[in-house]
Amino acid sequence: MQFHAAYCFYINRDFTKLKALYQAIRDAIHEGAVVYGEKLPSTRELAAAYHISRGIVNQAYDMLTSQGYLHSEHGRGTFVAYQSDIIHDHQQTVRSDTERLSAWGTRIQQLEQTAHYHVDEGAAWIDFSRYQPDLSKFPYDEWNNRLYAEVRNREQYTAAAAVSSLGEPKLREAIAAYLRRMRGIQTDAAHIAVTAGSMQAIALLTQLLADPGDHVVTESPSYVGISQAILAAGARLIEANLDGQGLVPQDWQARMLFVTPSRQFPTGEMLSLERRQTLLDWAHRQDAIIVEDDYDSEFRYRGMHVEPLKTLDKEGRVIYLGSFTKTLPFEVRLGYVVLPPALAEPFQKAQALYEPRPVNLIEQRALAEFMASGQYERHLRRMNRLYSRKFQVLLQLLKQELSAWLDWVENDAGLHVFGWWRGDAASYEAFQASARSEGVLFSEVSSSSALGTKYGIYLSFAHLSDAQLQEGVSRLVKAAGAAP
Amino acid sequence: MQFHAAYCFYINRDFTKLKALYQAIRDAIHEGAVVYGEKLPSTRELAAAYHISRGIVNQAYDMLTSQGYLHSEHGRGTFVAYQSDIIHDHQQTVRSDTERLSAWGTRIQQLEQTAHYHVDEGAAWIDFSRYQPDLSKFPYDEWNNRLYAEVRNREQYTAAAAVSSLGEPKLREAIAAYLRRMRGIQTDAAHIAVTAGSMQAIALLTQLLADPGDHVVTESPSYVGISQAILAAGARLIEANLDGQGLVPQDWQARMLFVTPSRQFPTGEMLSLERRQTLLDWAHRQDAIIVEDDYDSEFRYRGMHVEPLKTLDKEGRVIYLGSFTKTLPFEVRLGYVVLPPALAEPFQKAQALYEPRPVNLIEQRALAEFMASGQYERHLRRMNRLYSRKFQVLLQLLKQELSAWLDWVENDAGLHVFGWWRGDAASYEAFQASARSEGVLFSEVSSSSALGTKYGIYLSFAHLSDAQLQEGVSRLVKAAGAAP
Repeated sequence: MQFHAAYCFYINRDFTKLKALYQAIRDAIHEGAVVYGEKLPSTRELAAAYHISRGIVNQAYDMLTSQGYLHSEHGRGTFVAYQSDIIHDHQQTVRSDTERLSAWGTRIQQLEQTAHYHVDEGAAWIDFSRYQPDLSKFPYDEWNNRLYAEVRNREQYTAAAAVSSLGEPKLREAIAAYLRRMRGIQTDAAHIAVTAGSMQAIALLTQLLADPGDHVVTESPSYVGISQAILAAGARLIEANLDGQGLVPQDWQARMLFVTPSRQFPTGEMLSLERRQTLLDWAHRQDAIIVEDDYDSEFRYRGMHVEPLKTLDKEGRVIYLGSFTKTLPFEVRLGYVVLPPALAEPFQKAQALYEPRPVNLIEQRALAEFMASGQYERHLRRMNRLYSRKFQVLLQLLKQELSAWLDWVENDAGLHVFGWWRGDAASYEAFQASARSEGVLFSEVSSSSALGTKYGIYLSFAHLSDAQLQEGVSRLVKAAGAAP
Repeated sequence: MQFHAAYCFYINRDFTKLKALYQAIRDAIHEGAVVYGEKLPSTRELAAAYHISRGIVNQAYDMLTSQGYLHSEHGRGTFVAYQSDIIHDHQQTVRSDTERLSAWGTRIQQLEQTAHYHVDEGAAWIDFSRYQPDLSKFPYDEWNNRLYAEVRNREQYTAAAAVSSLGEPKLREAIAAYLRRMRGIQTDAAHIAVTAGSMQAIALLTQLLADPGDHVVTESPSYVGISQAILAAGARLIEANLDGQGLVPQDWQARMLFVTPSRQFPTGEMLSLERRQTLLDWAHRQDAIIVEDDYDSEFRYRGMHVEPLKTLDKEGRVIYLGSFTKTLPFEVRLGYVVLPPALAEPFQKAQALYEPRPVNLIEQRALAEFMASGQYERHLRRMNRLYSRKFQVLLQLLKQELSAWLDWVENDAGLHVFGWWRGDAASYEAFQASARSEGVLFSEVSSSSALGTKYGIYLSFAHLSDAQLQEGVSRLVKAAGAAP
């Protein structure tokens, strides 16, 4: 009997002799080189043939016996006990994906792939499509070399301290204090859940509140993740129109509504106070929940922050979402949700179903200190000055150079500038293709109504230098000039 | 007219005068101190009354006007435009929790709270209930001060590099290489998803594969998270019995099965090769999926690792779960799943629904280097020696001191020792209460069958010193002695 040819090769490498022998015999059985009922060489014979100790052969036989590959009969020897053909029979492969998925799985499978993040291939591209903070002014030294190191060294042996999936208690307190002071929201740590990013909150809340067939309202256009969450839950999407003052309220029959009142995403329209009242009245009549996504409220360049819709909520109908992804390094990746009392427990249980312990825990602890010490707000003020300047530069360039083709939405906040394409579908497509060949990337949306389809683009500027902003705009001008 | 009393207080604090004025007027409107249609003082009057500049009053009026709180009529003055009573009407609060939750939300709400982690209050408690690695031998200096610092400094400006929710590509490659070499699983990075912990994989896979009403099999007893995931999906739980050789196969009508073949959780029974074949045959006939949770396969103290069930899988029916939570510091919190080709895309989309970017990214990158450089396997070998000794110490103590009360399962692997209580429910409860008052904690399971209910306990030992192991066992002996 001859075992697998690779055996002699294995034995001379890093693998232990035992492992090599074990694998060689097992492979021989699987491949049918030795078959069910066949007698194996005695341990003495095998040891001699391969120049290994009998102890090793004994151990290998024992292991294979305990796993059911071999069986030994006292005085008769060791035999193959495994019928490989039982398994080899199954030549049929698993049925194709969608056939075996649940209804939820099938809906997930049908979702369009979420956006991939562009890889910057050097200076060749000007990439306005990337929603990324300018981190050149981030206090990395403080963050990496002091805060992280401290948190890491202090916390490393306290693994067992009770931390619920809702997140690090100190961070939840720091967020509550920030919201009370900066956004006028009366809340406390017990109603705050820390999430990996906003998407986790959007998906879990939709799943908690919407049954298959229920209606859920979102703005058109809006963040693609919201419609994905609604479709994944099997709910029906109602797309609310915008008219320059944010979404136009209607008497929807719906269980929940997603809205970006401070600054509509992506158009930048601000929802008027009257409409905010109308939405709250609607939620009262429908017994519905409103999810307010305050996605980049930190950056406002004139006047003051608009108060969130949440501050008008007397009934616990508004869920407020915030995020640190626009203000802190990429890897921090944290957001939060302010929950009405009735939803705090279901949300915590939903979050714990997918992960009972908090994610990005070191980041959570470092951020708690960063906020408590006042450094976070100092960082925001510094970034606000920096972005305000970039914003003015870009908006002025766009209005000067591209107003013939795009209708830029006037506003004074956020990390992107939004414009509606003035032409038709054909000219938009020509512009789009031409922009790509000029080496400029941007984000796009479209919105369809009875009047037809409108195309919009938005340009994120935070990560770009003045020179890049200028180069980007001049490429856009060339691309627009090439459109019919 | 008099604004909110807090105004004068605010103005002397950190808040800007503008913000203070804005808030004072807004609060006055909300509280009905000034009512709809009422005329406000002129900017000149207000500036004089509060010793602030007219410019600030103008700005505050403008902001409140743009938000709809005020409106001004040229030549006539500024008036309150907001009818606070529309909102104050809503005294009714939101209906209680479960009434408004979706069917999924209702199931989630009904789940028992997942375990809280005990806080170690000094040396008073001996806590066998904590599944925590011994980190005293972890190379923290290398990990924190070299690997993390390097990864952090190198990666901080490459935020935009394409990283799918499946995880850091270098880590997925390192895991694939580890599985090929150490566990005999033929796989590659394309079929590996990095998860926050195993629970994320368990929950997502159940949701992807099981519809409400479908049957899903799990071992009894088993990890509580598995039954929670099944119940959350609305599927029906089939509890398979164990008999000393792992679960007893039957011809279940079910879509999926969860199993811990290498070492049953928590009893430690090893599934025989014959039963592994039977399970694969069953899955073939039922066109079902098997989820193999290899939760602490890294630690085996005699002989070699058992090959995972996945190595016998020719049809892509077995999904393999692994985890780093037993080998690396608490905050690393990473696991992984090896997906059959047909499920790789649905899993990625499901994961991206809850969070489009990888969690614990810095940890993923540091771990990729830790594995690629061979340090991970060196660490495992070192820990294996350390745990092997602790395991022998504990098992011997338990068999010596506690065999009258508990039937200890003989095995040679893992980070806990399992025993079945020999007595009845009443005596078990007395033991349990008495253990708590002796100051010793452990994990518990129960398993019900036609023969009645059995009670089991398991003792995690990795984080405890020899002295603590001894003290813990002597407390258990006292507790058992007190039981009837």
